[in-house]
Amino acid sequence: MRFDVLSLFPEVIENGCNFSIIKRAVSQGAVNINTVNPREYTLDKHRKTDDTPYGGGAGMLLNCQPYIDAYKSIEKTEKTKTIIMSPKGKIYDQKKASELSELNQLIIICGHYEGFDERIIELTGGEEISLGDFVMTGGEYPALCIIDSITRLIKGVLGDEESAEYDSHSDGLLEYPQYTKPREYQGLKVPEILLSGNHEKINEWRRLQQFIITKEKRPDLFQKFLKSDINDYDKKILKNNNLI
Amino acid sequence: MRFDVLSLFPEVIENGCNFSIIKRAVSQGAVNINTVNPREYTLDKHRKTDDTPYGGGAGMLLNCQPYIDAYKSIEKTEKTKTIIMSPKGKIYDQKKASELSELNQLIIICGHYEGFDERIIELTGGEEISLGDFVMTGGEYPALCIIDSITRLIKGVLGDEESAEYDSHSDGLLEYPQYTKPREYQGLKVPEILLSGNHEKINEWRRLQQFIITKEKRPDLFQKFLKSDINDYDKKILKNNNLI
Repeated sequence: MRFDVLSLFPEVIENGCNFSIIKRAVSQGAVNINTVNPREYTLDKHRKTDDTPYGGGAGMLLNCQPYIDAYKSIEKTEKTKTIIMSPKGKIYDQKKASELSELNQLIIICGHYEGFDERIIELTGGEEISLGDFVMTGGEYPALCIIDSITRLIKGVLGDEESAEYDSHSDGLLEYPQYTKPREYQGLKVPEILLSGNHEKINEWRRLQQFIITKEKRPDLFQKFLKSDINDYDKKILKNNNLI
Repeated sequence: MRFDVLSLFPEVIENGCNFSIIKRAVSQGAVNINTVNPREYTLDKHRKTDDTPYGGGAGMLLNCQPYIDAYKSIEKTEKTKTIIMSPKGKIYDQKKASELSELNQLIIICGHYEGFDERIIELTGGEEISLGDFVMTGGEYPALCIIDSITRLIKGVLGDEESAEYDSHSDGLLEYPQYTKPREYQGLKVPEILLSGNHEKINEWRRLQQFIITKEKRPDLFQKFLKSDINDYDKKILKNNNLI
């Protein structure tokens, strides 16, 4: 899969992708990271890429011309999609990550400091995506988050041991608490059940912890889970612990 | 404000903070970015920082000892808070950014590849925070997002023109569309109203666009807004356009 990132700060994307899973995926040839700087495409004699908003207001806006020309310079495939990092976008989630991981090419358009002229969104047909309800300076860090979350879903990138299947959010519940050596650390002991060797009981305890933690920390996810098609095994644990 | 980031990949934080607003805030002395690598604190002879989970299961877990010793090495102030980047954390938002921007010091604990031994969370008393419902390889990119969103709220970091007040999410609604020069680009024209010079009408149009866009793209935010204490100006626009 190929990522093309439009950014006024391409070095942030390049440096950010040069470690861990993404770096490995690049060297394996599983992904390819390309950056395009709209500033290289501006026809303005002062190399400007922004201007004041029509109708007044604070701040500057990114101009169509450098962004659209930079966008056009990218060779597209049959399975290309464009997303625009934008505070008025749809909230990114694992379902979207999974959907985007099926593409041959993802073009990510990042703004910086300022908003986009709305026509950039219209002319590229890009889907506006937001990482969450908080304000950031630019789209570069969110783009790195998105590249990472997609790359780990691409076949062959993660080994069996690291497999994405075991990760959080795969069944809409939060993870159970985990413990490793030593058995006791600063007076805190590993729960007895985990040392029992009884895998049936361990799995039941872990499932119960997932229910308890999700109910407490993310009631929205817990309600969603309760409305889903719950199997008999889960139903029994929920009932025995007065969670339904 | 001082940020202390615990990470096995401190160079990602250091490189990531070396641009744009954060770089400027550092050079102004408004923020200070410090990294601590738990690997430097491990007492394991092979410098390991992880081990297998008790009770079985795929993957490895980060050990208490290197993380807790690295954590203890950080000098704390009276207004210090610790957050842990974790998929089972509370979802980060602008309210949390604003709350954290009042601190003297924020310690951010990042995992990588693996989960934490639960006792790291207990012993540091850190608040688990998640950027959203998607799976990432480590806490480094989310930590950069958080540092950026907090830094721009610190007094003196943004100039008047860039002021955070005008940003999205400040009143729980999405932004109105914006346009800059030229008036027409590839057949797409700037809406007439924005060229009218009638600021009362422009403001009304922009407010209406906010309502329409939020209702369409983020019905959750729109419902929340409708339940809030809406002023007469907004009420009139909503009524005249059959939005309530």
